[in-house]
Amino acid sequence: MSVASVENGWPLDDRGPAYGDGLFETVLVGDGEPRLWAEHLARLERGCGVLGLPVPARAELERPLAEAGPGWQVLKLILTRGSGGRGYRLPPDPAPRLRWQLNPFSPPVGFWQEGVRVRHCHLSLAIQPALAGIKHLNRLENVLARAEWSDDETAEGLLRDTRGRLVEATCMNLFWQRDGCLETPRLHRCGVAGTLRQALMARLSIHEVDAGPEVLHEAQALWLGNSLQGLWPVTRLDDVDGRSLAGWAITPDHRALQAEAHALLGYPLPEGANH
Amino acid sequence: MSVASVENGWPLDDRGPAYGDGLFETVLVGDGEPRLWAEHLARLERGCGVLGLPVPARAELERPLAEAGPGWQVLKLILTRGSGGRGYRLPPDPAPRLRWQLNPFSPPVGFWQEGVRVRHCHLSLAIQPALAGIKHLNRLENVLARAEWSDDETAEGLLRDTRGRLVEATCMNLFWQRDGCLETPRLHRCGVAGTLRQALMARLSIHEVDAGPEVLHEAQALWLGNSLQGLWPVTRLDDVDGRSLAGWAITPDHRALQAEAHALLGYPLPEGANH
Repeated sequence: MSVASVENGWPLDDRGPAYGDGLFETVLVGDGEPRLWAEHLARLERGCGVLGLPVPARAELERPLAEAGPGWQVLKLILTRGSGGRGYRLPPDPAPRLRWQLNPFSPPVGFWQEGVRVRHCHLSLAIQPALAGIKHLNRLENVLARAEWSDDETAEGLLRDTRGRLVEATCMNLFWQRDGCLETPRLHRCGVAGTLRQALMARLSIHEVDAGPEVLHEAQALWLGNSLQGLWPVTRLDDVDGRSLAGWAITPDHRALQAEAHALLGYPLPEGANH
Repeated sequence: MSVASVENGWPLDDRGPAYGDGLFETVLVGDGEPRLWAEHLARLERGCGVLGLPVPARAELERPLAEAGPGWQVLKLILTRGSGGRGYRLPPDPAPRLRWQLNPFSPPVGFWQEGVRVRHCHLSLAIQPALAGIKHLNRLENVLARAEWSDDETAEGLLRDTRGRLVEATCMNLFWQRDGCLETPRLHRCGVAGTLRQALMARLSIHEVDAGPEVLHEAQALWLGNSLQGLWPVTRLDDVDGRSLAGWAITPDHRALQAEAHALLGYPLPEGANH
């Protein structure tokens, strides 16, 4: 059972479907409360700046929350430049269009506890600093990367850019521990700067690095995270061909970062974590 | 007055608006006849192959033509992967969705006759061989590039890739004459392989080259073209800052290639052209 905005869909001349000319946010809602809401609003605002869209009023963005019920839900907000324009040229008086959907969500408790298996993707992310970091609607690279595997044993795929540097997973950010330090890929050339990543970086010392996948062989721990899925410990990394490249046992350090993330989201803390 | 498909728009869960997960074609229709139709069908088919979409039946793609009236019109076809899927993951049984719009079109007679002024764009196109050439719905780069100027004196903007090589204009392909040879940028890293470009290359010797913008200073003639606008002679090239970089008088060679293009489209031939 999902709830959707009254104006249910997109007219034919909307620039969202036509060009991917817009932004989206996927927000965890717990008992009616949006989690990491400040971070979501900040990223949407940054995206509006990049695309030259007016920022919707906060009240408009929060209206869907009135429909939220108890338990966990996911709120998807899509903002487009609206109708019109002659070809790619911007319409003279753009009227952005906001649509939303609210769906039930089951937190991935098994992945939190047992960790996940991930693989490298064959597809490389294009380097486009003009669009890096924001959550825009041009997501064909993510779609093609996610289509590279269909087995349910593989939870996510890691993406490198066209110069071979680690960037992210298809819908999650990447974190690892090396020599006792937390690291995450720099995202100024491509990739989406996740809200959980932002919130963790504001609380902890996490270094943004340019690194190829070989760095993962030096890592004592590896995680994937986003604001919906929380933080997953990675226990096995496979290559593009499915061959195992590396494996990790789940350590107290894994649990410690997981506890930080889950405290931010209001998710249950891992057992034995001293938060 | 425009005509549109009966199912007028996109549902909220369609992957077109959500991710730009689809393709489009913009087709010139003259007195009810689609021009370069074989080339449009071929590109759509190639795009379906890249995205893993079933190719719509030809009859389905031609259905809108029954609504076409006399004179010039433009048919826009948009094909998306349809509804569903969990995040980026492909839906198990995708049902692609086809939508179309038919609008009147005024051929740019003045641009044909007098030529156009163009400029370099600041934005660089990202290098993504996995999506190069096809006309997919991830077009934010084109939108941002087209937003770089708003004066009506500038007809188009030239785009280079992130390594500085010429690729195309925001919605047209690029051709030039150098040492008596016709050349056009290679499009295997980024850019859209236009149907007029395909048709001209099938008839004439046109070399695909990797070249930076300095090559234009050696050019005796420069054109922009697509299947809707026909072929425009370029008479002036400006830099990103509006400073003039080069200029060309319109030559018989300009008119000769224009005649080839307009014969393919069924547009009137330039005066004095020996076709």
